[in-house]
Amino acid sequence: MAQQKRFILDEKDIPTQWYNIQADMPTKPLPPLHPATRKPMTAEDLSEIFSKECAKQELDCEHAWINIPEEVLEMYKYYRSTPLVRAYALEKALDTPAHIYFKNESVNPLGSHKVNSAIPQCYYCKKEGVTNVTTETGAGQWGTALSYAAKVYGLEAAVYQVKISMQQKPYRSLIMKTFGAMVEGSPSMSTRAGKDIVTRDPTHPGSLGTAISEAIELAKSTPNCKYTLGSVLNHVALHQTIIGLEAEKQMEMAGEYPDKVIACFGGGSNFGGIAFPFMRHNILEGKNTEFIAAEPNSCPKLTRGKFEYDFGDEAGYTPLLPMFTLGHDFKPANIHAGGLRYHGAGVIVSQLLKDGYMCGIDIPQLESFEAGILFSRTEGIIPAPESCHAIAAAIREAKKAKETGKEDVILFCLSGHGLIDMTAYDTYINGDLRNYTLSDDEIEKNLGTVPKV
Amino acid sequence: MAQQKRFILDEKDIPTQWYNIQADMPTKPLPPLHPATRKPMTAEDLSEIFSKECAKQELDCEHAWINIPEEVLEMYKYYRSTPLVRAYALEKALDTPAHIYFKNESVNPLGSHKVNSAIPQCYYCKKEGVTNVTTETGAGQWGTALSYAAKVYGLEAAVYQVKISMQQKPYRSLIMKTFGAMVEGSPSMSTRAGKDIVTRDPTHPGSLGTAISEAIELAKSTPNCKYTLGSVLNHVALHQTIIGLEAEKQMEMAGEYPDKVIACFGGGSNFGGIAFPFMRHNILEGKNTEFIAAEPNSCPKLTRGKFEYDFGDEAGYTPLLPMFTLGHDFKPANIHAGGLRYHGAGVIVSQLLKDGYMCGIDIPQLESFEAGILFSRTEGIIPAPESCHAIAAAIREAKKAKETGKEDVILFCLSGHGLIDMTAYDTYINGDLRNYTLSDDEIEKNLGTVPKV
Repeated sequence: MAQQKRFILDEKDIPTQWYNIQADMPTKPLPPLHPATRKPMTAEDLSEIFSKECAKQELDCEHAWINIPEEVLEMYKYYRSTPLVRAYALEKALDTPAHIYFKNESVNPLGSHKVNSAIPQCYYCKKEGVTNVTTETGAGQWGTALSYAAKVYGLEAAVYQVKISMQQKPYRSLIMKTFGAMVEGSPSMSTRAGKDIVTRDPTHPGSLGTAISEAIELAKSTPNCKYTLGSVLNHVALHQTIIGLEAEKQMEMAGEYPDKVIACFGGGSNFGGIAFPFMRHNILEGKNTEFIAAEPNSCPKLTRGKFEYDFGDEAGYTPLLPMFTLGHDFKPANIHAGGLRYHGAGVIVSQLLKDGYMCGIDIPQLESFEAGILFSRTEGIIPAPESCHAIAAAIREAKKAKETGKEDVILFCLSGHGLIDMTAYDTYINGDLRNYTLSDDEIEKNLGTVPKV
Repeated sequence: MAQQKRFILDEKDIPTQWYNIQADMPTKPLPPLHPATRKPMTAEDLSEIFSKECAKQELDCEHAWINIPEEVLEMYKYYRSTPLVRAYALEKALDTPAHIYFKNESVNPLGSHKVNSAIPQCYYCKKEGVTNVTTETGAGQWGTALSYAAKVYGLEAAVYQVKISMQQKPYRSLIMKTFGAMVEGSPSMSTRAGKDIVTRDPTHPGSLGTAISEAIELAKSTPNCKYTLGSVLNHVALHQTIIGLEAEKQMEMAGEYPDKVIACFGGGSNFGGIAFPFMRHNILEGKNTEFIAAEPNSCPKLTRGKFEYDFGDEAGYTPLLPMFTLGHDFKPANIHAGGLRYHGAGVIVSQLLKDGYMCGIDIPQLESFEAGILFSRTEGIIPAPESCHAIAAAIREAKKAKETGKEDVILFCLSGHGLIDMTAYDTYINGDLRNYTLSDDEIEKNLGTVPKV
């Protein structure tokens, strides 16, 4: 008798609220601090650069459930629910008693989970009379999602893409332009921050830090323009909880509940998205699901970083956030998982890690691609290099289950596909890829740059 | 009240049989002829290069319904049913009273409909003790699907990819290699046919004709090896009817029945796949749905070709097939819709066109990309350049509906996504793309090369 492989919700069963874990956290996150005054920031302060609604959501520790606007729900229905898939072929290849499920966010039209937050961010901007949005993008997944969402709501979008990533993945910027966005390699000559860097170093390859600085500067200096961000912040994780809320219903359809929930970790948006809805049962009902954030071992903020107030960008334009950080001018190795090359973890996740509700593990680059290839050849989907980290972590857990003989239920988030990242796979297959492991000294030296507050 | 946008079948409702329109056709297709003897070929003759089961299906004019093997159905469930989507945003942009639906084959793991036939072809090979499969690929969609399906069944795959396409779309061959296939640019030095061409012309860019000749030669000269094809042939269209059979059930969920069914046209596999299940109601019950095959105006076999016996490849290795053709050594312009650059139409489709059950229309390249961009910006999916032709045809019909004020129900097949074809979009956006229209003389001259039988 054939077993069901994919679980998809009826449109009427798509969740109509996001889950705001801040309301249920035993220890509330510390507030963001103003970069100049170092005083706690209010929603009004934050709405200088963000839409009012997102600024409000950012600091909301009261409401556990936030209504998804009707107009956003209608847009979600273009691609949601995404399938929950039982990875039978991967299980067979691993000869494991574990049941492996993945939430397939790669089948939405833009190829990753990022659009889940791009849509509401642009919707709120439109509703509040904003006409232009800016953002930065590293790997390009967020920039792609934002370009599309901006077009949907008739907003002009300006995307600063890390210059080196723009050159490595030319298709990404072409996709953004096809959606009608203006794309600039960062550092560029269009902002003071960019010009300063280019003047100092004309061959600067760019970083998320430089791109964030440029996008914020443009937002601040342009009328009716707001800045948007694709990860790290609380309201982004809030929007992404649609992933986990759907997965919860879909696991129920499959008649199971996860023992382990896994996602790759850059700033925390797909991790928070899949984890928080399940984590609430740990917090409120004493369930004991394990939550595992898989970061690259070349950018190990969760496993080797320090919990401190730090900036989100290199120039120090952003609020100071309480987070696990490697130092805001940390320069990660040029690994192919561009979306995981960020120095800090989101505020909520950082607090949850501190309080023992989750753990981080670090995955070497070669192990991540080995996992990605096995997944491709069994499940037929080439995963994004970022998502390969989640797969590698799931494989580790499945191997443990084989040792113990337990039918562990493992759920991971497949945050995106890797079709735009084929050169990375090529390099791996040709044996030209390597691991980057940091010495304690390197970590320590960078952490010295974290500002004292 | 929100209207449902996507329709997805429960796994238990996925069709368990393919529809073989040959059994219901009032005029049966003429038989294939042996390239040397010019005598009608039997299934046994065909099984020299194809799997026995596919050879049998190719000539089956008796059974309207063919069981999908249980093992193939299990693989289909990795990605089927694909969604049927109501394109509300496109309708709105066109301000049309028409209801536009598309069957989204782009969300399967390999990005196009091709895998629907790759899986059964490899399955039958495996069952019959074959160990190696060969094929050719132009745009690369078929080669990708075949590489994956071969890996699933533990077969070695050798893919001859048109050399110029390999250079233009490097990601495609990297995907095939990631799935474990051997990929060679054609013309290559690994076959006699290839060597002959390279010796004559070392810079030959390759064509589907050269690649087919090489793949067939390799299959014939390798023990336990069969050749597979991704379009044109009857058994390929048979496997693709899963598209239309699902769409029929999904249109029922939407409470509608199509007035027009549209697909792009290269060899006829996605067209036959979506059209034949609906066409049977025209044939058997006198329904009058219109069936529109959209071909590029630079390769106009349906609209300006001749119905004759012709070869499927340049070297003349294949059986002679009765088809609408532009001549087997027709050299189409180097348009970006590589999958539509084939000189001939499938045998079944050719007969149906002759008998008035369907029509062909030709779309200029610029109109196809204009349609693709509008679709991207409304529905959020960047379509393959091939699929852009179907979208352009659907837009033409939607504009007609606006003129007449009729709520026409239009259904088209979105055969694949265009994420690997971003350079084509870039060229279009930069204004560097042009149309290619053939003079009557050019058409006439080529048709002179069609062999007399």
